[in-house]
Amino acid sequence: MSETTISERFPGLYDRRARALARAITTIERGGTERDALIREVYGRRGNARIMGFTGPPGAGKSTLVDRFARLCRAADQTVGILAVDPTSPFTGGALLGDRIRMQELYTDPEVFIRSMATRGAMGGLARATRDAVDLLDAVGFDWVLVETVGVGQDEVDVVRTVDTVAVITLPGLGDEIQAIKAGIMEIADVFVINKADRPGVDRTRRDLESMLAMGGHRDWTPPIVQTVASQGEGLEELHEKVGEHRQHLADSGELDRRRFHQLRLRVETILKARVLEAADAEMGLETQLEEAFGAGDDPYTVADRLFEGVVRRQS
Amino acid sequence: MSETTISERFPGLYDRRARALARAITTIERGGTERDALIREVYGRRGNARIMGFTGPPGAGKSTLVDRFARLCRAADQTVGILAVDPTSPFTGGALLGDRIRMQELYTDPEVFIRSMATRGAMGGLARATRDAVDLLDAVGFDWVLVETVGVGQDEVDVVRTVDTVAVITLPGLGDEIQAIKAGIMEIADVFVINKADRPGVDRTRRDLESMLAMGGHRDWTPPIVQTVASQGEGLEELHEKVGEHRQHLADSGELDRRRFHQLRLRVETILKARVLEAADAEMGLETQLEEAFGAGDDPYTVADRLFEGVVRRQS
Repeated sequence: MSETTISERFPGLYDRRARALARAITTIERGGTERDALIREVYGRRGNARIMGFTGPPGAGKSTLVDRFARLCRAADQTVGILAVDPTSPFTGGALLGDRIRMQELYTDPEVFIRSMATRGAMGGLARATRDAVDLLDAVGFDWVLVETVGVGQDEVDVVRTVDTVAVITLPGLGDEIQAIKAGIMEIADVFVINKADRPGVDRTRRDLESMLAMGGHRDWTPPIVQTVASQGEGLEELHEKVGEHRQHLADSGELDRRRFHQLRLRVETILKARVLEAADAEMGLETQLEEAFGAGDDPYTVADRLFEGVVRRQS
Repeated sequence: MSETTISERFPGLYDRRARALARAITTIERGGTERDALIREVYGRRGNARIMGFTGPPGAGKSTLVDRFARLCRAADQTVGILAVDPTSPFTGGALLGDRIRMQELYTDPEVFIRSMATRGAMGGLARATRDAVDLLDAVGFDWVLVETVGVGQDEVDVVRTVDTVAVITLPGLGDEIQAIKAGIMEIADVFVINKADRPGVDRTRRDLESMLAMGGHRDWTPPIVQTVASQGEGLEELHEKVGEHRQHLADSGELDRRRFHQLRLRVETILKARVLEAADAEMGLETQLEEAFGAGDDPYTVADRLFEGVVRRQS
C-alpha cells in the first residue's frame, strides 16, 4: 500500500480523523496482507509519541485516571490517543470497558481518539494488534498514546510491554495475597499509583509496595509511588512529573532503545510463528495433519518436524 | 534414542526410580534433540494416568491440598507423580514452592515422585516443559499426575491446560475484585475448591462463585463447588469423588479427546515456532538480523518475512 493508497483507503488518517483511525485499527485487528501493508507504510513515521501503559485490577479506577491524565495533556495542548484493551472472557465480558462510556467529555474533543480493543481468541493476537495500533497512533502524530488494560495475566503483561512507561494502579486495603496474585504485573511497573488514596489503608499499601520493591533487588530505576484521588484530580500533576522523569531516565540510560529492541524481537517472533503456521496450512492442511497425527498417536515433536519439512519443501 | 538407550541413559526410569525421573525431567527442561528423542520414545506409552491440575492464589493452601489428595490416592494403592510449577519472578522467587518442603511424609514414599519446575525465562517454555514432564510421568506408569501451580497469569493457564481436570482453589473472604483478577483462571475450572472452609466468609465466597458460574452461560459440565479444610483432611473424599465424576463426563462427552487434541495443537505450534527461530538463527544469525533491522528502522513484518525467506532458501 503506497502513501497515496493509504490516503485513499483511509481519508484523513494523517489528520487524525476519528473515522479513518477507527477503520485503520479494524484493519489491524482483522490481520492479513492489508494489515501488513498498513504497518509497513506508517512504520517509518513513528517515534515521536510518548507511549504509556496503565494497568491494574478492575475497580482500581484506571479509566478515571487515564481520563484525568489525558485532560492534563490536553491542557498543555498535547494530542492524545487512548487504547482501552480488554481480554474478553465469558466472565468479564466487555464489562470492564463500561467505564469508558463515562468519558463523554473527552469524546467530544477532536484531538483525543479513544478506541477499545478486545481479544479475538488468538493467542498473542491482542498483544500484536495493540502494538500495531500504538504504531499507527504514534505515526499519525499523537503526542501521547495511552494504553489502558486490566491486569489479569500474561496477555496483559505482553500488552503493557509495548509501552515505554508502565503505571501499575493499586488500591488501599489490598492485602498481601492480592499483591502476590499480581506479581507478574508488579515487576513490570515503572511507576506505582495508589489510587483512591483518600480511603483507609493507604499507608499499609505503601509499605507493602515498598517492601516488595526492596525484595525485587537493585534496579537502575526505583519505581516511585504516587498517591492519587483520580475522581478529584488529586495527584495527577505528580504522576505526570514522575512519568516525565522516567522518560528522561529511559533516554539517558539507553533503556528506551533496549525496550524497543525487545518489542521488535517479540513482534518478529510472533509474526514468524504465524508465517510458518500459514505456510504449513497452505501446503499440507494444518487441521488434517493434526487430526491424522492425533489419530495415529504421533508425538508433537514428530508432527512439528513433519510440518516444518513440508513448508520448506513447498517453497523450494 | 531407542528404548535400550533410554534404559541406559536413565536406569530405572520405567520402574519410576526417583533419580532416573529427576534426570529425565532435567533433560526435558534443558531442551534440544535429547529432549525431543526422549519424548518421542516415551510418547507411545502414555494414556493411562489421570492428569489433574491444582491452581489458585498464594496462601490458598494448594500444597497441603495436593498432599492430602496424594495420600488418598496412595491409600487406594495408586501411584502419584507431582509437578509443582512456579513462575519464577524477582518478587515471588522460588518462595511459592517453600510449602513443598513440608511434605516430608510423601517424600519417603517410593511410589510418590515430587518435582519442582520453574520458568527458565523462555516464553511458553514452562508450559511446554510441563506438558513433556506430564507425558513422561504418565508413560512410566503413574496412576495420577498432579500438576500444582500458582494462579497468576497466562503462563499458568497454559500450564493447567495440559491437564484433564482443573481444580481452582479459592478461600473464604476473597471479594469481587479478587475474583475478577482471577477471571482467566476461573473460566478453566472444572472443579472449584473453597479451602480453609472453617473460616468466616465461606457462604459469601460460594455465592460469588455461583453467580460467576451463572454469568458464564450454559456448559455441558457445571463445575461443582467443594468445601475443604485440607489441613484437617476434611472434604478430600468429596473432591476425589467430583474429580471422578468429571473424568467420567470427559470420557462420555468426547471432551477428553477434544482437550487432548487441543493440547497437541498448542504443542505443535510452540515447537514449530521454536523450529523456525532456530533455523533463522542458524542461517542468518537472528541477533544480527534483529540488530540491523532495529538500526535501519525496519518494520517487524518486513523483518519477519526476510527471516522466513532466509529459512526457506537455506533448506532448498
